[in-house]
Amino acid sequence: MNIDQLLSANAKSMRRSAIRDLLKVAVKPEIISFGGGFPSPETFPIEELKKIMMDIMNEQGAAALQYGSTEGDVSLRKEISKLYNDEHLNIPIENILITTASQQAIDLLSRIFIDPGDVIVCGLPSYLGALQAFWSYQCHPYGLRHNNGLEEAVNALVAAGKKPKFIYSIPDFQNPSGETMTVEERQYVVSVAEKYDLLIIEDSPYKQIRFEGESLPTMYSMCPDRVVLLGTFSKTFVPGFRLGWVVAANNIIEKLIVAKQSADLCTPIFNQMVAARYLQSGMFNKNLEKIKSLYKHKKNIMIKAFEDYMPEGVTWTNPQGGLFLFLNLPPQYDTRELFDLAIKENVAFVIGEAFHCDDSGKNTMRLNFSYASDDKIVEGVKRLAAAIQVLYKRKGN
Amino acid sequence: MNIDQLLSANAKSMRRSAIRDLLKVAVKPEIISFGGGFPSPETFPIEELKKIMMDIMNEQGAAALQYGSTEGDVSLRKEISKLYNDEHLNIPIENILITTASQQAIDLLSRIFIDPGDVIVCGLPSYLGALQAFWSYQCHPYGLRHNNGLEEAVNALVAAGKKPKFIYSIPDFQNPSGETMTVEERQYVVSVAEKYDLLIIEDSPYKQIRFEGESLPTMYSMCPDRVVLLGTFSKTFVPGFRLGWVVAANNIIEKLIVAKQSADLCTPIFNQMVAARYLQSGMFNKNLEKIKSLYKHKKNIMIKAFEDYMPEGVTWTNPQGGLFLFLNLPPQYDTRELFDLAIKENVAFVIGEAFHCDDSGKNTMRLNFSYASDDKIVEGVKRLAAAIQVLYKRKGN
Repeated sequence: MNIDQLLSANAKSMRRSAIRDLLKVAVKPEIISFGGGFPSPETFPIEELKKIMMDIMNEQGAAALQYGSTEGDVSLRKEISKLYNDEHLNIPIENILITTASQQAIDLLSRIFIDPGDVIVCGLPSYLGALQAFWSYQCHPYGLRHNNGLEEAVNALVAAGKKPKFIYSIPDFQNPSGETMTVEERQYVVSVAEKYDLLIIEDSPYKQIRFEGESLPTMYSMCPDRVVLLGTFSKTFVPGFRLGWVVAANNIIEKLIVAKQSADLCTPIFNQMVAARYLQSGMFNKNLEKIKSLYKHKKNIMIKAFEDYMPEGVTWTNPQGGLFLFLNLPPQYDTRELFDLAIKENVAFVIGEAFHCDDSGKNTMRLNFSYASDDKIVEGVKRLAAAIQVLYKRKGN
Repeated sequence: MNIDQLLSANAKSMRRSAIRDLLKVAVKPEIISFGGGFPSPETFPIEELKKIMMDIMNEQGAAALQYGSTEGDVSLRKEISKLYNDEHLNIPIENILITTASQQAIDLLSRIFIDPGDVIVCGLPSYLGALQAFWSYQCHPYGLRHNNGLEEAVNALVAAGKKPKFIYSIPDFQNPSGETMTVEERQYVVSVAEKYDLLIIEDSPYKQIRFEGESLPTMYSMCPDRVVLLGTFSKTFVPGFRLGWVVAANNIIEKLIVAKQSADLCTPIFNQMVAARYLQSGMFNKNLEKIKSLYKHKKNIMIKAFEDYMPEGVTWTNPQGGLFLFLNLPPQYDTRELFDLAIKENVAFVIGEAFHCDDSGKNTMRLNFSYASDDKIVEGVKRLAAAIQVLYKRKGN
């Protein structure tokens, strides 16, 4: 039968992930990949988890393997609430929903807020997985190059009858750019949202992985009624358990629960219990220090390698946290062309265009510094620099 | 801010789960609940899983805690393929997608096939979680009381310009009715689908839990190009790991993968690896025999208690497998009214109306026989019978 004829408009507006395609290309073991968003496996607390798993199976086995509630395990939500104590926030667990990693939170929020043709505002670049979710609901993301253009953009959109459903923002060590919004920028975004009565989705997967500079307040802390805050354990604990959360006002949480019921009923309860005990034990905070120190080290190795090997005209961001940084070639070059050359040199990255909802950013690329070993970071950067040299020559630079 | 103004049409068409409301009411420990679809915790292989978990953490810890592929763990998909060998099916793993339990499969299929206003055909009654997913995409489920009315119904829908996007069917020990389609009924549904060029979604969570009678062929085995087959480990292994799967043609699997990327990226890899080893070890099949024998025993206890205690006019189905059976009161009674009386008697069930997309079935109710202990099944049925007597008296029977 002809499946294409049956597909929904949602299905037709879905876009494949550039990262998925990359992973299909970069499977050879000789390839050094800066492509994925993988945490370093060195940071996985395997021995600690073995003990916690056995304790749970011995003490709460039947409950851990049974269905759980849609809103999530109470003990885990209590621990998540405590994570915000350093911002002097006291979040009741009723305002916290556990999701099957924060990708699901973005999906459920899209489902409850986006009608076909709706506009949302996001960054240029922005997180590819969020763009994918927005597109899958036939949303039109409006990309903003600089935060200070927000009011002008919102004003123009409102005047055109396209008031954005929400502002999607990743203020700390943004994926993919690695950039962090200043306190003033956060206050400005909140003030625009207040002026135009807009919702903000504050996606915060990396905030806790700050290895330089001072922690900055969430936009949620500035305006909890108007901000939906997303968090995840994928980068600070393990990605394989698929655990994220939403902090939001009661009426939003209630709608998300109903949406989640039909999406996957509940997030694995065993996984939630393991995470809760890991947090309770204090090992989470201890391991977080290890993660931060490791990623700082790896980031510095990558930056040093850039300084040592990158040809003229290549620039990069220098993030204060997170897992990613962003490289720019001179504007006349296309990283799609570079990608093929890089694969020949056995190194991979994600083309920056994939993170731009307006198909701009052709001269940019995202590099992950958390996954590869120290030696491979240096060797990979050398290979990438060589590929860029080939591209330069080909274009007669 | 006024969240209601921002909600999408999808959000407005979502319906809360009656089961969720039930679970909120039936929290008191003195209540015997036949409401949920919980497997018996006696069937959870806690000791076996402890060993498997340790083996995985020792041998593959880093991979088990990392991101996995969207399509799912290869070893688990191989084991799932083997489950169909007894139907002489040889399903390549490329035709199998792991989902975050089969609720997600229903959700993703709805997303890729349903446009607002689309019609699908399902049973009267049908699985509530599927109806919830359909509604959340603004679908209009058309409910069919008897399978033999299918061609007439499809013909009328096509004539009205409302050709169904698919037929949703649960052929084995249906949730909630407990009824099983005969081979002839399956062949008939497939023939109608072929005649009208329709897709069939065959939801099969209970097929392996057949404790009486002979296993019947899937509709998938009759027409693999036109049938999408859903399976789950929630009832045969553990629900808390959230593991299900889709078997479908390549082009459908490809679309589902893209949809799943933005829904939750991947299903927990650790959980998948545990399930794969559990299947590989042969313990799955061994435990399945235990599950079948236990549920047969429990079902028979419940049926015997009905025979002993139910007042005149109450009828019930007698399923050959699965976890549920369906009770009918005489047509003038409403199980919503009975529910309040039952809670006073400290027993709970799910009102049958919740499973009827046309709000019919007011005199019906679903009872789960897998979860409560033997004693509680008898005591719960006594209490329910007493509540029905009160209802009868109130209505002057």
